[in-house]
Amino acid sequence: MSLSVSIIGFGAFGQLVARHLRDHARVVICDPALRSNDLSSVDLTGAAGCDIVILAVPLSQMQGVLGAIAPHLRPGALVADVASVKLRPAQMMRDLLPDHVQILATHPLFGPESARDGIAGHRIAWCPLRGRGHLRLARFLRGLGLRVIPTTPDDHDREMAVVQGLTHLIARGLADLGAGSSRLGTASYQRLIEAAAMVQSDSPELLRTILTENPHAAAIRQKFLRGAAGAAI
Amino acid sequence: MSLSVSIIGFGAFGQLVARHLRDHARVVICDPALRSNDLSSVDLTGAAGCDIVILAVPLSQMQGVLGAIAPHLRPGALVADVASVKLRPAQMMRDLLPDHVQILATHPLFGPESARDGIAGHRIAWCPLRGRGHLRLARFLRGLGLRVIPTTPDDHDREMAVVQGLTHLIARGLADLGAGSSRLGTASYQRLIEAAAMVQSDSPELLRTILTENPHAAAIRQKFLRGAAGAAI
Repeated sequence: MSLSVSIIGFGAFGQLVARHLRDHARVVICDPALRSNDLSSVDLTGAAGCDIVILAVPLSQMQGVLGAIAPHLRPGALVADVASVKLRPAQMMRDLLPDHVQILATHPLFGPESARDGIAGHRIAWCPLRGRGHLRLARFLRGLGLRVIPTTPDDHDREMAVVQGLTHLIARGLADLGAGSSRLGTASYQRLIEAAAMVQSDSPELLRTILTENPHAAAIRQKFLRGAAGAAI
Repeated sequence: MSLSVSIIGFGAFGQLVARHLRDHARVVICDPALRSNDLSSVDLTGAAGCDIVILAVPLSQMQGVLGAIAPHLRPGALVADVASVKLRPAQMMRDLLPDHVQILATHPLFGPESARDGIAGHRIAWCPLRGRGHLRLARFLRGLGLRVIPTTPDDHDREMAVVQGLTHLIARGLADLGAGSSRLGTASYQRLIEAAAMVQSDSPELLRTILTENPHAAAIRQKFLRGAAGAAI
């Protein structure tokens, strides 16, 4: 396969993507100095010239990266992000990328930890925003055993405000109480503790993204806390 | 075995107890007209005269039942409750039962549903309050495969304010949101939904007991809600 793929952002997730693509495409790695925040020091020209450009940078870096690659993207290139929320990156990609590139917003529902033994059976939320180039990529990923789940950025964020937002909210509440396994624990409580443990090692950056960058998160959070408080009556 | 056991309160749990004891003791069933609340219409004398008296009535009925049986209990009889909280029934039994009876507060961590296929492997919280007659009963229950977990009413209620209180609180919050399984659900979220589903069929009476009759429940609830709300920052 002669396809060239660049991965911008070589954190844990970027490395995971690279491992799965390196046998199938010519992979270009590029890390825009995430810590220094100094994008000017990194040459993104090569990365921007690939057939597929995967943005695996934190959401806080996305605007800068989009601005830096925009002038160098080739016509027909497919730009895809992998952030945990979708409305904001979708808006940024639409606003900052030239009309001649295709755009795909994705959220892989797995990470380096859960996909340690492979990505087969895992899921990826899939929001095609411009062009049909995503179809070929979806076919390729389905071939690897991934479940590609079509949705829209708004539906995604609304659903994830419940799925991820509440999981983290509850995990935080339990952690503040020092709640752990108990000799008197019920089967139901045991599942709560397992649920909380599973998200405990998520990064502060991910947590911030889920809780503050999802436009639906605050309303869902308030509604849940009101309902839970009402259980006291 | 010549032991006589009375079960006062023949609801779902009383029936479960009867099923497991009938082959091992002479069982006397007595239901003090829970609905009419008219204890005077029921003769508890026979039930009170047994070697072991098991109180399987709702907490709201316990004071009346204790008053009714107190004059008829034989010296050395063992009176045991099975309520989901322990401080309040322990206090009531100590206050209302004569000095010549033994007292045991218990909380079986199973019910007709979870123990459908037997009680082996299930647990019972065990708070001996007066006398040593509970030792024989504990040996008997261990012989049936039950795990007998010694604790105190205060430790029990403190631990269950987390274990049961928070499970129901969270289940209520999720139910109010209409949260259910999701195409985008993570493994952590899936466990939350399972945890909530497990307590959904608990009776309003049990819910009220757990949430309002446990002296530690309110503080734990407030602390959890504060911690969870803090996750937004």
